[in-house]
Amino acid sequence: MQPASGIITLLTDFGMRDAYVGAMKGVILSICEDAVIVDISHDIPPHDVHECAWVLRGACRYFPRGTVHVAVVDPGVGGARRAIAVQSGGSYFVGPDNGVLSAAFDPPLTARAFELTNDRYFLPGVSRTFHGRDVFAPAAAHVAAGESVERLGPRISDAVVIPIPRPRVTETCIEAEIVHVDRFGNLITSIDAATLAQWSKHAGSRLAVEIAGRRIDGVSTAYASAQPGELLALVESSGHIEIAVREGSAAQTLAAGRGAPVTLRAG
Amino acid sequence: MQPASGIITLLTDFGMRDAYVGAMKGVILSICEDAVIVDISHDIPPHDVHECAWVLRGACRYFPRGTVHVAVVDPGVGGARRAIAVQSGGSYFVGPDNGVLSAAFDPPLTARAFELTNDRYFLPGVSRTFHGRDVFAPAAAHVAAGESVERLGPRISDAVVIPIPRPRVTETCIEAEIVHVDRFGNLITSIDAATLAQWSKHAGSRLAVEIAGRRIDGVSTAYASAQPGELLALVESSGHIEIAVREGSAAQTLAAGRGAPVTLRAG
Amino acid sequence: MQPASGIITLLTDFGMRDAYVGAMKGVILSICEDAVIVDISHDIPPHDVHECAWVLRGACRYFPRGTVHVAVVDPGVGGARRAIAVQSGGSYFVGPDNGVLSAAFDPPLTARAFELTNDRYFLPGVSRTFHGRDVFAPAAAHVAAGESVERLGPRISDAVVIPIPRPRVTETCIEAEIVHVDRFGNLITSIDAATLAQWSKHAGSRLAVEIAGRRIDGVSTAYASAQPGELLALVESSGHIEIAVREGSAAQTLAAGRGAPVTLRAG
Repeated sequence: MQPASGIITLLTDFGMRDAYVGAMKGVILSICEDAVIVDISHDIPPHDVHECAWVLRGACRYFPRGTVHVAVVDPGVGGARRAIAVQSGGSYFVGPDNGVLSAAFDPPLTARAFELTNDRYFLPGVSRTFHGRDVFAPAAAHVAAGESVERLGPRISDAVVIPIPRPRVTETCIEAEIVHVDRFGNLITSIDAATLAQWSKHAGSRLAVEIAGRRIDGVSTAYASAQPGELLALVESSGHIEIAVREGSAAQTLAAGRGAPVTLRAG
Repeated sequence: MQPASGIITLLTDFGMRDAYVGAMKGVILSICEDAVIVDISHDIPPHDVHECAWVLRGACRYFPRGTVHVAVVDPGVGGARRAIAVQSGGSYFVGPDNGVLSAAFDPPLTARAFELTNDRYFLPGVSRTFHGRDVFAPAAAHVAAGESVERLGPRISDAVVIPIPRPRVTETCIEAEIVHVDRFGNLITSIDAATLAQWSKHAGSRLAVEIAGRRIDGVSTAYASAQPGELLALVESSGHIEIAVREGSAAQTLAAGRGAPVTLRAG
Repeated sequence: MQPASGIITLLTDFGMRDAYVGAMKGVILSICEDAVIVDISHDIPPHDVHECAWVLRGACRYFPRGTVHVAVVDPGVGGARRAIAVQSGGSYFVGPDNGVLSAAFDPPLTARAFELTNDRYFLPGVSRTFHGRDVFAPAAAHVAAGESVERLGPRISDAVVIPIPRPRVTETCIEAEIVHVDRFGNLITSIDAATLAQWSKHAGSRLAVEIAGRRIDGVSTAYASAQPGELLALVESSGHIEIAVREGSAAQTLAAGRGAPVTLRAG
């Protein structure tokens, strides 16, 4: 089993206005004084489990083996949803069993999931509203300090996984959707580079992207291929087709957001 | 005296758009190279001393003994207000003497406060507008590096303390107010669990909460007790009665904010 | 050559909603496991190179020698602009060659700049949209881990530098502009304390500041010199004349922002 690196990442919808993130960090450092705590984001929109899963997928692969990733977007806190820890690809994942940890289950990873039931690893007097502080932070800190993830509770085989969004591929087009809008207003689609490359073998390399009544000819190689203010499509840094406006916001220009349909056709 | 742990937490209203927080961190690391700096929040609304005191109360108790907590919401910077350091409950607190450090004085803690007058622990050429960088960060770093807090200046006995908000309890009701609105729009009241338990002995366990012309029957145990979009009252993670909307914002639903009156009655 | 301290600061326009900052941190820790990562800001307005240069100037001087400062506001990513590393004043700077690193070239510093061309220090498969993760983070991590900056690529002598804004000084007035608006709505001008002191020798110490059709008499020593809500001018913490409203926002009160003209006259 991969030894823990001592690095713990945090990804939540708690914002930074309240004491919530600070309390989690204090709990972690009280259990594992040498922990290296890394904020991934606390600005996930409230209760947005899908967005949390997307951001964790984009960040976790870049951390060293042995990192413990804590993701807490948890609208079901205090209810029936389980709390889990997952060992996968040499890393560890801790959070509610609602799909936020889906990155741990992406192929070709082999994941082992455990339900957090051993209250020896909880804070005393677990609240019904804040398992980030009372359950997930202490579990993560114990794992980072070297505790075996198997001690946290029984193994389970039915953890909730949010599938990677896949486009619908036909002979004449790829039907996809916007799966993420980033800080710059870039619109990331569900069309990944592998799907595009496969489809282009048959359809040719002249492509057009249709979105929000607009047509974009070709897939550019970089933002610099367009003029400032101009729409373009390109392959972004996680390997998906992205619709962008150079030095502007495609989300504003097209009034489009997550879920908006996108079609890619032979040009 | 509790040895310093090397952990320094930061809590300010500086935001993260400017160089202010970075400058404080640089000053700290220049004095105490092994300091572990933990951001609690820099998103306190500008000049909101009460909010700063509330957030510090919610976070500081979870940190290891020996932590140095720096809180800087400081509308009186450069004027007559004192700069102080406080030793309390095995931890240290540094900031302006305007109530932001009130958590250090909460019962049953025994606090010893010192005025920061020894300019040996300041940056050279203290500005009149940014004591976070020039006074508080260096003082905190010296304490984290092992300097005795008694060296920073003379002991004082009249530090400014913002009292914990208390509800008014009568035979028939508890009159309280909203003391904090969190990122989710949850409305945290001044009714703490101990007050509620004591009152319920006489008034019975059937309760109703009145706020903004609405009545909520009963105190739920978790968000999951309500339907999405439904109002509920529950005990939140710091032990206070909270008004929430499941997967929504009570602040928006009720158009209520800090200071709004809340009444709890026998149901 | 100054040995690296292991401290790496990050300053970007990436926001904290996406996976971008987390990915950079993961890359750094994968290369330099003992790196101490310090966030300066990720809230630079998108594509605002000037603002990035200003914030780095305000923060970098407070960090220990041997710190590596990474600044990524990079609208030209994937195009012709170079990627550079700079050794200056005992510290290191890494980012795009578009002026964001101008602080490294401020007098009296002696800077040596290198173009990042040695792909041994890049991530494999560099993207065309995210050099923060693929080029700048790994380069910074290698420098923090002790690699010589000279290994990263050839020395260059024509790095892009954004000059420090300077006011126009005449016998009767100083004509300047707003160069930064901070989180509090304070308006920082291009008038630095040295220029003001020099000019005051001739013009006398009675001064008036004109901005947005308003006149402010005198330069105060601290916010506390004004009444709450009142306009004042004072010397702020980086040594520039600032227009402020005590416990309010001068930017809102005056409806003024970056670039707004300011004139200082003998009173």
